[in-house]
Amino acid sequence: MGSLRSQISISLDGYAAGPEQSVENPIGIGGMRLHEWVFATRSWRAQHGQEGGEDGVDSDIAARASEGVGAVIMGRRMFGGGEGEWDLAWKGWWGDEPPFRVPVFVLTHHPREPLEMDGGTSFTFVTDGVESALSQAREAAGEQDVMVAGGASAIQQYLAAGLLDELQLHIAPVLLGGGERLLENVGDPRLEPVEVVGSPAATHVTYRVL
Amino acid sequence: MGSLRSQISISLDGYAAGPEQSVENPIGIGGMRLHEWVFATRSWRAQHGQEGGEDGVDSDIAARASEGVGAVIMGRRMFGGGEGEWDLAWKGWWGDEPPFRVPVFVLTHHPREPLEMDGGTSFTFVTDGVESALSQAREAAGEQDVMVAGGASAIQQYLAAGLLDELQLHIAPVLLGGGERLLENVGDPRLEPVEVVGSPAATHVTYRVL
Repeated sequence: MGSLRSQISISLDGYAAGPEQSVENPIGIGGMRLHEWVFATRSWRAQHGQEGGEDGVDSDIAARASEGVGAVIMGRRMFGGGEGEWDLAWKGWWGDEPPFRVPVFVLTHHPREPLEMDGGTSFTFVTDGVESALSQAREAAGEQDVMVAGGASAIQQYLAAGLLDELQLHIAPVLLGGGERLLENVGDPRLEPVEVVGSPAATHVTYRVL
Repeated sequence: MGSLRSQISISLDGYAAGPEQSVENPIGIGGMRLHEWVFATRSWRAQHGQEGGEDGVDSDIAARASEGVGAVIMGRRMFGGGEGEWDLAWKGWWGDEPPFRVPVFVLTHHPREPLEMDGGTSFTFVTDGVESALSQAREAAGEQDVMVAGGASAIQQYLAAGLLDELQLHIAPVLLGGGERLLENVGDPRLEPVEVVGSPAATHVTYRVL
């Protein structure tokens, strides 16, 4: 059985999204600044079908983020399509060929039939909680790792439940001054930094949850 | 003229002190956990007249913190002795021979005559604001740097005023869940990480304020 990992970009003042999040702008005001480091990398651009980009520490980190990942879990807001009943025309933010290329399990309160997308991604909608999503994801992943892709609330739930093995933070040198905090409502987990690398664009710290 | 630098230990959830700070416990509940990385180092122990301790990344960082520093600025709470009028018997938390060994300027609303301590430390009490403290400290430091030693409020004021050149954060792998945040009320300064080093005990990130 693989590990349960997560990785997410946060501001130096601890926000995973900026203020005034909405269905149309789930990342909040200024939230895109958290991700500038990754959008600039060659590896992220290649994963998303774009050319160019920069090599270096940040590109290496972005490339490794999906290595060894056999299934993904994400929250409803990260999949998008509003908070209530489904508009079945909505198939996520990523177009017909999402970049995950593995089974994705979406935490939601609203049932929906699974979606098969191009390029190996499927979306399965899980309404019976984080542990159910995890066991379904583990079965899909086999010996590989499961990645909690976000958002903050999904990561909080797995961390608070003591289920997360590894959390990698991409700390952007940005202050948002408000928004959705990542590290609250998670109790007092024992964390050990096991890798630290940095660039002018972000500081990447990997914590093992003991 | 040297730089205006600061360095401080914070929790991974952004607190420079734990909850329920008081005159007797200015660091708050759990706040000492932020400093365990430095208490364990050989260089910090030597600066404080103690033997033993560990060598390595953390010790190197602690040694460098005071290098090139010709004067120190700190807040009233860091000097201690309560918030109101002075008890003149109070001469700070550090005994007769404080570890600073340079002139120290204490931000306070309550005038007091300067104190000359053993080993090169003096305490001068500044009642007319952060810019006055800075110019006095710069004059005392000559070509050397001025260090804002803390606490959070003093650092916030220099950062918000656009006066700080460099901020080094020692990010302890600890969640305090409450307390005094460092990075709030400081606006949106442009920060660039210029050095990142880590150990299992802390992640040390130096930001240049642009």
